[in-house]
Amino acid sequence: MDAAEETLRRSLAARAAAVTAQASAVRDLKAAKASSADIAAAVDALNALKLDAAAAERELIAAVSGGGEGDANGGAGMSREAFRQAVVNTLERRLFYIPSFKIYRGVAGLYDYGPPGCAVKSNVLAFWRQHFVLEEDMLEVDCPSVTPEIVLKASGHVDKFTDLMVKDEKTGTCYRADHLLKDFCKEKLEKDLSLPVEKVTELRHILAVLDDLSSEELGAKIKEYGITAPDTKNLLSDPYPFNLMFQTSIGPSGLSPGYMRPETAQGIFVNFKDLYYYNGNKLPFAAAQIGQAFRNEISPRQGLLRVREFTLAEIEHFVDSEDKSHPKFGVVSNLEFLMFPREKQTSGEKATKLRLGEAVDKGIVNNQTLGYFIGRVYLFLTHLGIDKDRLRFRQHLANEMAHYACDCWDAEIESSYGWIECVGIADRSAYDLHAHTEKSGVSLVAHEKFPEPREVEKLVIAPVKKEIGLTFKGNQKKVVEALEAMSENEAIEMKSALESKGEVEFQVCTLGQNVTIKSNMLSISKEKKKEHQRVFTPSVIEPSFGIGRIIYCLFEHSFYMRPSKAGDEQLNVFSFPPLVAPIKCTVFPLVQNQQYEEVAQQISKALKTSGISHKIDITGTSIGKRYARTDELGVPFAVTVDSTTSVTIRERDSKDQIRVSVEEVASVVKEVTDGQSTWADVQWRYPAHSSFSADE
Amino acid sequence: MDAAEETLRRSLAARAAAVTAQASAVRDLKAAKASSADIAAAVDALNALKLDAAAAERELIAAVSGGGEGDANGGAGMSREAFRQAVVNTLERRLFYIPSFKIYRGVAGLYDYGPPGCAVKSNVLAFWRQHFVLEEDMLEVDCPSVTPEIVLKASGHVDKFTDLMVKDEKTGTCYRADHLLKDFCKEKLEKDLSLPVEKVTELRHILAVLDDLSSEELGAKIKEYGITAPDTKNLLSDPYPFNLMFQTSIGPSGLSPGYMRPETAQGIFVNFKDLYYYNGNKLPFAAAQIGQAFRNEISPRQGLLRVREFTLAEIEHFVDSEDKSHPKFGVVSNLEFLMFPREKQTSGEKATKLRLGEAVDKGIVNNQTLGYFIGRVYLFLTHLGIDKDRLRFRQHLANEMAHYACDCWDAEIESSYGWIECVGIADRSAYDLHAHTEKSGVSLVAHEKFPEPREVEKLVIAPVKKEIGLTFKGNQKKVVEALEAMSENEAIEMKSALESKGEVEFQVCTLGQNVTIKSNMLSISKEKKKEHQRVFTPSVIEPSFGIGRIIYCLFEHSFYMRPSKAGDEQLNVFSFPPLVAPIKCTVFPLVQNQQYEEVAQQISKALKTSGISHKIDITGTSIGKRYARTDELGVPFAVTVDSTTSVTIRERDSKDQIRVSVEEVASVVKEVTDGQSTWADVQWRYPAHSSFSADE
Repeated sequence: MDAAEETLRRSLAARAAAVTAQASAVRDLKAAKASSADIAAAVDALNALKLDAAAAERELIAAVSGGGEGDANGGAGMSREAFRQAVVNTLERRLFYIPSFKIYRGVAGLYDYGPPGCAVKSNVLAFWRQHFVLEEDMLEVDCPSVTPEIVLKASGHVDKFTDLMVKDEKTGTCYRADHLLKDFCKEKLEKDLSLPVEKVTELRHILAVLDDLSSEELGAKIKEYGITAPDTKNLLSDPYPFNLMFQTSIGPSGLSPGYMRPETAQGIFVNFKDLYYYNGNKLPFAAAQIGQAFRNEISPRQGLLRVREFTLAEIEHFVDSEDKSHPKFGVVSNLEFLMFPREKQTSGEKATKLRLGEAVDKGIVNNQTLGYFIGRVYLFLTHLGIDKDRLRFRQHLANEMAHYACDCWDAEIESSYGWIECVGIADRSAYDLHAHTEKSGVSLVAHEKFPEPREVEKLVIAPVKKEIGLTFKGNQKKVVEALEAMSENEAIEMKSALESKGEVEFQVCTLGQNVTIKSNMLSISKEKKKEHQRVFTPSVIEPSFGIGRIIYCLFEHSFYMRPSKAGDEQLNVFSFPPLVAPIKCTVFPLVQNQQYEEVAQQISKALKTSGISHKIDITGTSIGKRYARTDELGVPFAVTVDSTTSVTIRERDSKDQIRVSVEEVASVVKEVTDGQSTWADVQWRYPAHSSFSADE
Repeated sequence: MDAAEETLRRSLAARAAAVTAQASAVRDLKAAKASSADIAAAVDALNALKLDAAAAERELIAAVSGGGEGDANGGAGMSREAFRQAVVNTLERRLFYIPSFKIYRGVAGLYDYGPPGCAVKSNVLAFWRQHFVLEEDMLEVDCPSVTPEIVLKASGHVDKFTDLMVKDEKTGTCYRADHLLKDFCKEKLEKDLSLPVEKVTELRHILAVLDDLSSEELGAKIKEYGITAPDTKNLLSDPYPFNLMFQTSIGPSGLSPGYMRPETAQGIFVNFKDLYYYNGNKLPFAAAQIGQAFRNEISPRQGLLRVREFTLAEIEHFVDSEDKSHPKFGVVSNLEFLMFPREKQTSGEKATKLRLGEAVDKGIVNNQTLGYFIGRVYLFLTHLGIDKDRLRFRQHLANEMAHYACDCWDAEIESSYGWIECVGIADRSAYDLHAHTEKSGVSLVAHEKFPEPREVEKLVIAPVKKEIGLTFKGNQKKVVEALEAMSENEAIEMKSALESKGEVEFQVCTLGQNVTIKSNMLSISKEKKKEHQRVFTPSVIEPSFGIGRIIYCLFEHSFYMRPSKAGDEQLNVFSFPPLVAPIKCTVFPLVQNQQYEEVAQQISKALKTSGISHKIDITGTSIGKRYARTDELGVPFAVTVDSTTSVTIRERDSKDQIRVSVEEVASVVKEVTDGQSTWADVQWRYPAHSSFSADE
């Protein structure tokens, strides 16, 4: 541990101690029944200390792990950038992706999936549907992207879904303020080796707290460091918030603002009532949606990872906040994988393998349902072909989480860009349903019917309107309302004060003043009542999948290069598992000849009947070249026709070949592509075959 | 034939004769080498006559067929409206659809698919992918919805994708001008029985030509008839065009206008070059795309049929315009179904059954490729469960087609709203690729390499720059360019003029004046050249599927009611084929008992392994009620567990039951749901079982 780290660690410890001390001070004040103003001041101080501690936490992490970017293995000895370039070149050349509207010079942050990319995407979505919607009996819905303003006002997106932006004062070009500051600090740290220690500490601190900086703080730093527009070196405007939603107008009047949804979740929340009914008014249940989402990024970077339109797959699992156990947790509890709890991050350790059951038992993961989804997400991603050693579940730090969230874990996948958040799994408590209940006036609640009515003691506050009216005249209504709105604790406090002193000071917020309440002005009593049900707002646990990011990481994890047989060339291979491969199988007549082509057609027909996507390649190119061509598309199996009775099947990664009769080919390929058998299974059953051609 | 119809028929015949006469006049003028002004005037007159004839055509059709709406069979003796209401009630109650953002009082023209609707939709799309993309080896792509302006400027949508709108002059409420005029005419015709014959003729004429009316004509009619705003009776503004695209802005600068795409096709056209390359630079090939499209309708009506956001599935089949034969046409040529060629429509006949091969042979359908797709669309729709007797292929009339289109057929499905266009199959010639070539400057063309180089005669225009420079000085460049840009015909004309007169007047547009060209200023000669390939812009044949409309019509065609066993109730049934049914099978333990529930779980597990979507219903409700509940969701098979060794399988429509052992259930259900066997096949193999319950 170096000296700087030691300092940071001590600073964090000191701040954490300050938080603990202040929290206990707040408790003491409450116990001592101090004035609410005093308590409020103490709570404010506590919150400030918490923010401070969180910043120290981030700072330490940044110092220890170098900004959270681990050591990606960029393929055999290549730099990350060179590896990425090799992958992206292959992806674009083979039309996995195409920059959208290329003939018009494109639009930043918009990409098309070309034929093989589109096939991979639809395989990933089909498996998502199988793995989550079907296997978990979820209710899938499909809502429009065009969304009226009121919905996104309720969700908070209209007011808060912003990034801070600065403009080149002369050209008007826009930049993300935090990106410019980040680039400046990183470059300084990397390139200016003469930087004094205090300056290093300062810049590291900025990188650590970047996400927490206010508009004013960002602006001040940009001024202080003299940061200018990267392209022109012109001065920059002050930062101001830019809303990331694409705005539009619904209907012709121009009076109904709308937005392209920034996530699919809201479509589910607003339908809660119907979906709850559809589920027989029973909890828990989950709804799911796959669809487009839109974010009008200020200046998209990171190529395929930060785009302006993308496919999300989201699950909203509605559950009673008093019982977050999950009946199927046992199925995943023995899974063991890389987890990165908050404490490990702040103490500068690395992610370590943890048994999921243990993580939940120890309270590292907040509850079983959250844990169950973490497990299911792990299974989903590794089935697709994501390398389990480059996948970790990272818990959000206190300052990363929304204020209402209970706990939140991101499935992060390591790529050449570092660790990338690909799935967020959040326990959002009852926030979303509350927000829409409030805004729409439709109550989005669940009911728990009691088998037997329950007797409950309820505090009844009964203001004596006549007495209050005599004393407070025109203010009567506001005083009555304030009394009725007291919490149970406040009412009990008032009852005992009235009993001992006969009167009590009482703050009426709507009047902006304290009034004196006397014993004859209200009665506070406990009454027994029979209740037949409990009415409550369910909690929401939300796994949200960035499909495009998962696919991009999958491309990086599947890509490798190997020398051609002659050794004069490096050949690209995508080692997709059959589940996601864009085409499952190719059929090659060894030489151009009518007999072989007829056999190829016959095999193609059988493959079609079995529902296996495939391609015939009858070009006269050498068999080695044809293998190389399909390896680059990630096709797992190739059938080469070299006789009219039996053919060979070649596996992409091992290049091993087996000899199979023409009649059996389709069923063997089906077996190994739909997961009934492995290649090893069938290799054992059929004779091996040596390679055809010297040029492979 | 009544007198009015007779009159219309005669009027059409007269106009058609006028068109023929004028067309021959134009030919004569051309042959006589009349002045270009004279020829242009004659062509203008011809076009006006054509429009006139087209209007007469429509008028006749409207009179004969009552506005194109045939006699939909709205179920057993119900009115169309009552039938529609019964379907829509069931669809909304069972959450096939939900009006979007319902808790916020919704947005016209936006609907969610709830769980069963969403499952039907994804089944339809999966089958579309199987039937078209996989079976026809199409190149599927997936492009963003956000589209920069320049792309939609090239396609014509920015300028021409409009509807005419009028505004309530006081409240600002917007209406489609043609809708108001249509409603007025229809209501008058239906309700005002005292209307004089001339007035009836006039109103019918308006209905017939409604789509062709200009903004001024619509406005004049609205004024003439005193049509006011339907809700307030206020005066209306003059009609003006409203662009139906949702507009937005890409990026933060506000300087890059964008739109939500109104169709998916443009994403394919702009990628033509890459896709052609991907296909080995070979024609023909087809690209396909499934995705959202957006139309900001002025005032959406017709419920689920006219919405502001919808899923399109589009195919762009690129083909050499000189060879539109199709190698697989033979596979569909013997299909026979309802076709409604242009001539049948104008002569007031009905659609009749036609053999597809005959339709192509006789030139009714323009070419084999168009015919092949018509056949494939027919197979697609009928496989889904569309009633073949309520499906017709209607050819566009001359005035309906875009000016560049060769031929166009709509698959129309009859619903309670009349005949609804659900799939358009158009031969769009080379229009789209031309438009994008022109706008982007990137040439979207195909190459046909000749096996042997061909000798061709080419006209070579060689300006003598020195002479031109001496005469025209600073204008030299513009004169040279204009000379080089001459068409072959112009050059030949000039050559002969120069040979006979020695000089000729020549218009240089870029100078805005005529100049005198003399023989010494250029040479025009024919040269023989060897060409190795033909470069041309491919034609596009575009089948475009409105997925939501197809699904809605499918709902209507599948819906029926039957009395409950007690006869006291009408029960709703959706008779979906297993292919599209939202759930393939339900499992019911006959009574609530642990043994039966265990068997149900065991069957569920086997069904899951076979990939069959299903639901267990363990509520204590009577078996009859449970059947009724799933019939209403269109679940084709129900498994009732009434012993631990064997169970019954009930088929939804016949209500027939067979007895099958617990071990065999999953495989039998799989057989009948994935199309390997029919219900009749398995009924023959297993013993029948009589109904369980008196209340079914």
